[in-house]
Amino acid sequence: MGRALASTLLKAGHEVTVWNRTPGKAGDLSARGAREAPSPEEAIEASDLTIACLLDDASVRETLAPAIGKLTGRTLVNLTSGSARQARELAGWLEKHGVRFLAGGILAVPPAVGTDEAVILYSGPRDLFDRVAPALAPLARPHWVGEDHGYAALYDMGALSGMYGMIAGVSHAAALVHAEGGDVETFTREVLQPWMEQMLPLMFADVDPDESNAEMQATGLETMISTSEEAGVPGDLAGHLRASLWEMRRATA
Amino acid sequence: MGRALASTLLKAGHEVTVWNRTPGKAGDLSARGAREAPSPEEAIEASDLTIACLLDDASVRETLAPAIGKLTGRTLVNLTSGSARQARELAGWLEKHGVRFLAGGILAVPPAVGTDEAVILYSGPRDLFDRVAPALAPLARPHWVGEDHGYAALYDMGALSGMYGMIAGVSHAAALVHAEGGDVETFTREVLQPWMEQMLPLMFADVDPDESNAEMQATGLETMISTSEEAGVPGDLAGHLRASLWEMRRATA
Repeated sequence: MGRALASTLLKAGHEVTVWNRTPGKAGDLSARGAREAPSPEEAIEASDLTIACLLDDASVRETLAPAIGKLTGRTLVNLTSGSARQARELAGWLEKHGVRFLAGGILAVPPAVGTDEAVILYSGPRDLFDRVAPALAPLARPHWVGEDHGYAALYDMGALSGMYGMIAGVSHAAALVHAEGGDVETFTREVLQPWMEQMLPLMFADVDPDESNAEMQATGLETMISTSEEAGVPGDLAGHLRASLWEMRRATA
Repeated sequence: MGRALASTLLKAGHEVTVWNRTPGKAGDLSARGAREAPSPEEAIEASDLTIACLLDDASVRETLAPAIGKLTGRTLVNLTSGSARQARELAGWLEKHGVRFLAGGILAVPPAVGTDEAVILYSGPRDLFDRVAPALAPLARPHWVGEDHGYAALYDMGALSGMYGMIAGVSHAAALVHAEGGDVETFTREVLQPWMEQMLPLMFADVDPDESNAEMQATGLETMISTSEEAGVPGDLAGHLRASLWEMRRATA
């Protein structure tokens, strides 16, 4: 992802200095005009705007801690995925050190970075967002979601939850059909994909409770569980979906 | 669902006899020309083609057992949801009694019945399907999926699994954002729905393993779990998705 971000900024005509935990990984970026810094400090010193995109929150802390003095008075945009609480704690720490900070969450797979399909969610001070948005815009449509530094991570994780639900549903469906000797490819193309594409918008519509009453829903899930058991496919997903579904409904009621 | 089916057949100009476990429930259907039979036997005797759409497989067995003699030499289409094994067992029982049998699975919510969006999957003898498809076509696009009577149920449950995955994902996302004081409506409209619509086709594409490596995926799920825990939202979905995902991958590998 870091490579896709740097590469997109280079294409947009920005001067880009890169640093990676594994030295030498910037090979093709260097050939396209990026300067490779030997340390985070030197990468930070190269400009007023530093973009972090690492494995997780712990990597961000480890990487920035020795270089924190250099960030004072500069702007950090953190695009590493993490939880809302991690983003808030990071914001508190950076504020103590006089760092201007925007938290971000990338809603795109790496090949989509720099295309119209990509969105990056940002949270933190609105005026800071307005100032850096033009520089960040080549990466993805910048979408500010609130002052609370935790919101970009929260909405990002929310969006990923939706995606993981789809992945789990598709995986379960394929496993079920496979286990009973069905033709997964035909099933997926002719049945599953058109059905899910038709249903997805309804997930967000106000559904008339008469149209799919709770008893029918519950019966459908029971049948899904028994079908999974018969097929020898772990029924966990179905059972857990049932549990989660009612829990979630209660949580948002 | 039974009401939607009968109503659509009436609109298409068919003579329709209806029976419901709760007498008198056919009120508006009668007003539109349906004949209400006092018993399953009399409903079956009214034509060569009987369509069953009940709560579950047990209801089908209970309803048909006393009337099975009347079905001999006639055709039964069962649109009740159930498992593949239930459909196969029902097929065995009906065959012993000389009943022509097609198993079906409705891929539509009741309001979509009779529209271009609705599909009904059928499995069983291809020649029987070809004979009854014209009569069934007004209900939904008829889609034959194989001779094995279990396949309509199997593919139907597969498609529902995909849908339940989406429901669980959306519910979890909404609960997460709600628990952290986010604006669920804005999040859903501006972030979740566009993201899921963008991601869904990718669920069915061959993904380059380099583009989203396993370590990043695993880290994303860990973050989803910790975010859920921080928010006080049951983390079950995430944990179970993780377990299910790897199990499903193994099952289909």
